[in-house]
Amino acid sequence: MKEISGGVCAPRGFRAGGVWCGIKAGSQKRDLGLIYSEQSCAAAALFTANRVKAASVLVSREHLASGRLRAVIANSGNANACTGEPGLAAARRMAELAAAKLSAKFSGKPLANILTNILRKDGGIGPADVAVASTGVIGVPLPVEAIENGMDALVASLSRDEAGHAAALESIMTTDTRKKDGALEFDLGGVPVRIGGMAKGSGMIHPNMATMLCFMTTDAALSPPLLDLALRRAVNRSFNRVTVDGDTSTNDTIILMANGAAGNHPLAREGPDWECFAEALERLCVKMARAMARDGEGASRLMTVTVSGAVDEESAALLAKAVASSSLVKAACCGADANWGRVLCALGYAGVDFDPAAVDVAFQSAAGKVAVCRGGVSLPFSEDAAKKILSAEEIEILVELGGPQVKAGGAAATVWGCDLTCDYVKINGDYRS
Amino acid sequence: MKEISGGVCAPRGFRAGGVWCGIKAGSQKRDLGLIYSEQSCAAAALFTANRVKAASVLVSREHLASGRLRAVIANSGNANACTGEPGLAAARRMAELAAAKLSAKFSGKPLANILTNILRKDGGIGPADVAVASTGVIGVPLPVEAIENGMDALVASLSRDEAGHAAALESIMTTDTRKKDGALEFDLGGVPVRIGGMAKGSGMIHPNMATMLCFMTTDAALSPPLLDLALRRAVNRSFNRVTVDGDTSTNDTIILMANGAAGNHPLAREGPDWECFAEALERLCVKMARAMARDGEGASRLMTVTVSGAVDEESAALLAKAVASSSLVKAACCGADANWGRVLCALGYAGVDFDPAAVDVAFQSAAGKVAVCRGGVSLPFSEDAAKKILSAEEIEILVELGGPQVKAGGAAATVWGCDLTCDYVKINGDYRS
Repeated sequence: MKEISGGVCAPRGFRAGGVWCGIKAGSQKRDLGLIYSEQSCAAAALFTANRVKAASVLVSREHLASGRLRAVIANSGNANACTGEPGLAAARRMAELAAAKLSAKFSGKPLANILTNILRKDGGIGPADVAVASTGVIGVPLPVEAIENGMDALVASLSRDEAGHAAALESIMTTDTRKKDGALEFDLGGVPVRIGGMAKGSGMIHPNMATMLCFMTTDAALSPPLLDLALRRAVNRSFNRVTVDGDTSTNDTIILMANGAAGNHPLAREGPDWECFAEALERLCVKMARAMARDGEGASRLMTVTVSGAVDEESAALLAKAVASSSLVKAACCGADANWGRVLCALGYAGVDFDPAAVDVAFQSAAGKVAVCRGGVSLPFSEDAAKKILSAEEIEILVELGGPQVKAGGAAATVWGCDLTCDYVKINGDYRS
Repeated sequence: MKEISGGVCAPRGFRAGGVWCGIKAGSQKRDLGLIYSEQSCAAAALFTANRVKAASVLVSREHLASGRLRAVIANSGNANACTGEPGLAAARRMAELAAAKLSAKFSGKPLANILTNILRKDGGIGPADVAVASTGVIGVPLPVEAIENGMDALVASLSRDEAGHAAALESIMTTDTRKKDGALEFDLGGVPVRIGGMAKGSGMIHPNMATMLCFMTTDAALSPPLLDLALRRAVNRSFNRVTVDGDTSTNDTIILMANGAAGNHPLAREGPDWECFAEALERLCVKMARAMARDGEGASRLMTVTVSGAVDEESAALLAKAVASSSLVKAACCGADANWGRVLCALGYAGVDFDPAAVDVAFQSAAGKVAVCRGGVSLPFSEDAAKKILSAEEIEILVELGGPQVKAGGAAATVWGCDLTCDYVKINGDYRS
């Protein structure tokens, strides 16, 4: 398995692009993006668990019901959430516009594609073949006429190159300061296949769900149920283990499209090949999830919390999430303060049973490692050394549980978060203006 | 019912005091407090729900098992949590020291008290008659010798006057910048009775439990079970509806002592008199809870969230808590930004079923009221007017639910919180140093 460039355009048969259409007034930063597959794709998706769902989420959920997609259209600068019936109509219009413009542009299809489409009983591109995603401010009507005016330029911007990927990625960024993307190549039954992805998100990030937008492509051939299974497992161990501020957004959307262009023997059941695909997908998702935590709004440090020795992985993840979500731990992390008592305090309200008298805590970074708590009580340690370790850009909080309930070493889980800084407050104190 | 002065010393037969004994190194701010009742008290208490419990909590829980108390000793500057067996021994020692010194000082009791005590089969003061509470940094051994050295001065500082209350209150404050206390007088069966209280807490404040220390006294006569019932109801509607940062501390302790010195006919069952007592207690608790939210670490504003039209009070409280706990809502409040979309977003992940298309939201303060959302979508409103309203020191977020599930107006609940500011980060970035 190797990392490659190209993002969502790395897998064969995908194109991407992005333009500024005027939703982000003033800035002229790209705000409208498109990912298109030359062939029909098996597709899997996960959406926000928030009861208040953006119009784009409602529409995409409908369109994903078939398990197949051709394209994703996404905008930033406006979440199209809490916008009522006009918002739903706007989201549907986005899918219609994309379907119409893509059909028109690619009507002169190469023969091979036409044949493929006939074999798949796949006609032109309809609105139901297009997923819709939005991110930005909530409660403001989406200026769908701006999207309408930008559609020709958007479709014209589609490219198979990394530039297309980069333009699409830029078009979904809001307060993001770093790119979250990646691509991998690996073999499935002797055939090289690729997966690629892009994600946005730096605020409203919290487990259950991913609280972000993430679009992934692969040229591997898998059935929709197997794709769904792989996506759920990967997301559970990556985006669902990231926390920035505890807020679960109205717009979370993760979409994975598989067009089969690599020509591997289509995966139809679990087994070593599926495991290999699922692992690659998890690796890509973890890479983007980590990047998201590192780019948490206002964050100065990535904070990785690993809990081991738990009764099961779910318990380990819940404990690690409580630590990574604690405002007090996050503020201490900002100040590079080795306040391990707050770590124990957070473990204590995670809702998981454990023995407080059998907890070890250590802090670690590129600058070294310091054990600060053993068996639930303080260890003598050098404050200066701890400060140095905690002043690194990426720090780790290592929690080792013990006691009679732990069998054979127990289970572990890692959660990614970031420190809480003044900049978080500044960024979110006046986001709309 | 009227507000009176005196705090925990307002009810007859209580004394309080506080001194600096050296736990807070350097500052010479009071760090050791005592509340003492001249007569044996029925007592009720609530402790932290955190699985990691301070030694003081473990010891006080034991001592409260009898339902009776004579005194509470409390220190600030050190939480005596995550301190293992030595911590437990230190907490027990605090109770022993207080019992011994109080017994010695008050051995020459007035005859009336001696008679009362004989009638109550109540001998001298033993360690089990003393509750212990601590607040401050976690994981550092409690310097119990400092407490030992300060005991004579502490007992000497006891006073029936408001000055005694003020000294005791000061001795439990940590990052608190304001006093949280109060006292009320009302009639029970024609006899005037009083309740008084003091509380500390400005960080690690979150519902379930109160995440703070609170000591209340009353000269009303009630059985321990009735006292317990009244305390639970009052706390559920006050301290359990305050949130500052979502962290539940290891040390939360609420104690209510009733010495019967008012001479009312002892309450032994629920009824109008008990209701009257319970209401007064709730009013006192709400006053202190509000003050705690207003004094949230770094807070510039009190944020009151009221959800009405819910299916029941518990649902209303859960929804209001989600809004008041949201980092994004709190940051918007700091910036006086009328970002109602975040309010809807927070409602959406509260874990309570409601109709997102039937939600009304308004902001209100002394500067006026502005409706910003009706039926889940935006209302036109003046940003300038909203800014002015949200720039007040105390703001209200009013959420009105609707839809078919709401019968006869539904239920309401109010939760108190505060904004999230840079100062919160500064205060908590380097608390230990």
